[in-house]
Amino acid sequence: MRQSHLFTKTRKEAPKDEVAKNAQLLTRAGYIHKELAGVYSYLPLGLRTVNRIVQVIREEMDAIGGQELVMSALQDKELWARTDRWDDKNVDVWFKTTFASGGETGLGATHEEPLTRIMCDHVSSYRDLPILAYQFQNKFRNELRAKSGIMRGKEFLMKDMYSFSADDESHKKMYALIREAYIRVFDRLGLGEITYPTFASGGMFSDFSEEFQTLSEAGEDVIYVDEDKKVAVNKEVYTDESLAKLGLTKDQLVEKRAVEVGNIFHLGTRFSEALNMNFKDEEGNSIPAIMGCYGIGPTRVMGTIVEVLSDEKGLVWPKEIAPFEVHLVSLGNDHEEVQKEADRVYEELTQRGITVLYDDRAVRPGEKFADSDLLGIPTRLVISEKTMTQSGVEVVDRKSGNTQLVPESELLKRLQSA
Amino acid sequence: MRQSHLFTKTRKEAPKDEVAKNAQLLTRAGYIHKELAGVYSYLPLGLRTVNRIVQVIREEMDAIGGQELVMSALQDKELWARTDRWDDKNVDVWFKTTFASGGETGLGATHEEPLTRIMCDHVSSYRDLPILAYQFQNKFRNELRAKSGIMRGKEFLMKDMYSFSADDESHKKMYALIREAYIRVFDRLGLGEITYPTFASGGMFSDFSEEFQTLSEAGEDVIYVDEDKKVAVNKEVYTDESLAKLGLTKDQLVEKRAVEVGNIFHLGTRFSEALNMNFKDEEGNSIPAIMGCYGIGPTRVMGTIVEVLSDEKGLVWPKEIAPFEVHLVSLGNDHEEVQKEADRVYEELTQRGITVLYDDRAVRPGEKFADSDLLGIPTRLVISEKTMTQSGVEVVDRKSGNTQLVPESELLKRLQSA
Repeated sequence: MRQSHLFTKTRKEAPKDEVAKNAQLLTRAGYIHKELAGVYSYLPLGLRTVNRIVQVIREEMDAIGGQELVMSALQDKELWARTDRWDDKNVDVWFKTTFASGGETGLGATHEEPLTRIMCDHVSSYRDLPILAYQFQNKFRNELRAKSGIMRGKEFLMKDMYSFSADDESHKKMYALIREAYIRVFDRLGLGEITYPTFASGGMFSDFSEEFQTLSEAGEDVIYVDEDKKVAVNKEVYTDESLAKLGLTKDQLVEKRAVEVGNIFHLGTRFSEALNMNFKDEEGNSIPAIMGCYGIGPTRVMGTIVEVLSDEKGLVWPKEIAPFEVHLVSLGNDHEEVQKEADRVYEELTQRGITVLYDDRAVRPGEKFADSDLLGIPTRLVISEKTMTQSGVEVVDRKSGNTQLVPESELLKRLQSA
Repeated sequence: MRQSHLFTKTRKEAPKDEVAKNAQLLTRAGYIHKELAGVYSYLPLGLRTVNRIVQVIREEMDAIGGQELVMSALQDKELWARTDRWDDKNVDVWFKTTFASGGETGLGATHEEPLTRIMCDHVSSYRDLPILAYQFQNKFRNELRAKSGIMRGKEFLMKDMYSFSADDESHKKMYALIREAYIRVFDRLGLGEITYPTFASGGMFSDFSEEFQTLSEAGEDVIYVDEDKKVAVNKEVYTDESLAKLGLTKDQLVEKRAVEVGNIFHLGTRFSEALNMNFKDEEGNSIPAIMGCYGIGPTRVMGTIVEVLSDEKGLVWPKEIAPFEVHLVSLGNDHEEVQKEADRVYEELTQRGITVLYDDRAVRPGEKFADSDLLGIPTRLVISEKTMTQSGVEVVDRKSGNTQLVPESELLKRLQSA
């Protein structure tokens, strides 16, 4: 894409009302726009980044047999009343509203109830199980405070997945499969080394649930990390009793701040019983399915990546989720030959399937470089009179700042192997 | 995808509370699930179909320079008050709700206001224009009645696009470009021959707006079609005065029922003036941008396609939007060789990038064929003892019912040229 065509502009100053680093940088770089506290729109570069995060998650969920669907935001009050989760006393983040045709509705903050009801129509026998279904869908949570940018919103994108199994053994296998898939997701998103499966309070059906916590000073959680075992414990279960159950000892644990980027839960039969999501087992008995739920917030992940990877110059995206792979910067506004060469490189890379943001704007080199640093695309290519004299292209790595003159003939090979 | 893995099941009877053919068939085929009147979830086959419609629209919008973003559902009351569209007296489809932190909000039924405000941050000069920006986003409309299945929902997916131009000439060019793109979209979606650009009431900034109306008895609109000119007039502007302006005569016009599948509007400076979306023109004067808006509802389009293309056996999808290109039906439950051959064909087609739903279930042939007709995938391949004896594969065209035995060696060529 030609940058002269991109409608968003960068800005030097962060908006005064943003305190979170992720919101400040993403706004300055033109990735997002704040609509209301905790409510953001995603502009072209931001949407491209979200979509790449979504695609990584989708590939890993599909690889373990996940089936994608999408449920509605508007929720059936009667359904939620059956599980005792309609009342604001029990669930305190509802946005509720009224139908013109009569009756109340609310905006879904999670989707155990509607998916369980859907399964009632499609599952009758143990032969239909297990089922693993997921969606990317906007959740609505009526949060009192929203000061963490896109890391905690009132409206935000969520990958929520739910499993339905015939028995405990099958459920445990499914849970383990998903846990491994989550580890792969965070590896691919560039957060693997600082993301810990973390034991947290478990609810009614297990001693613990597991969170995926990414180390960051911007995090709201306090966790205790065992580096050797590559696991952690959330402060809420940091007790002698819990640690004994987990086989962990306090002298091996280091306190850290972290962001919860994912979580996986055993739900048991809490929802399937309440909503009669029963199936016939091998003996012909009608019994409720065993469920689990598994979340990752793509926009929260995006905010977390900004918090932990950006530097004083701006955003720094891992290659797998950057809005473009290459930022091509032409310093050829006044030099027709340079402009032509940059056009040629742009066409060639694009034709080879490499995604390129091409800064063809008529602005000063200093402004182009500052913008390029701010936008955070992993690889910058600079074409100027100087590089043309040297028959090469300057390749700059955004993260390390390393700069190298690469002969034109080797450019494509270099980019494809990067 | 193996059908034994697909969690949805078909059903013989339509739900009693659905009166629209599209909702009846899509529910029976397991494409959608009704959550509430006018509120549907999209199950795996349904989501795949929606996504293919979305992709056709996206390609055509990108081809004319559209930039994709995504805005929030939760809306800023103060912003809408500035254009006089917060009050229920002026806009009667709001779902309104309250923030826990105080103050009212509403769910967006359209997005002129927030996008215009976003542009205030990014546009300063005539050099920044024109801009064409669009999103695929869920709209919320508090409709009193919702009996048309997915053709009219309280929550539904919309492609809404907005243009911002520096002067009237530039706006008219943009409008014409988009009008052509819309014609290409409906052609690709298989609705071209029965979809008419239709003059309708125009609002404050032009004599007429244009709708794209698809002929269907299920439609809510009455239009008057001029077959020769391939245009139509909505009943609301079917007056002698309007027809004279349009150069149409009553004796050339035939009354038809139709569904509005898209619309394109001149907005003038209605929103840019109210929200101070100004830019500096060549003389340095600060003036408001000229806007247009352009909608297509992918889920409404999907419902319309069901209404006009399905037959007594079930759904019939055009190839470009079918959830899978091929439905591979194996009649080999009791025949290991048939099963193996079907597995082999499934692997081969999938590896070649052809999307295949593979009916590997252990059910009767009659059930498989009935389900296959109901699901509506364009090409059915049947592998059985009989076809193996003949060293071929039976290829059935869902739409025409034409059946042909194709030698295995020619199968791939046949599918790729189809």
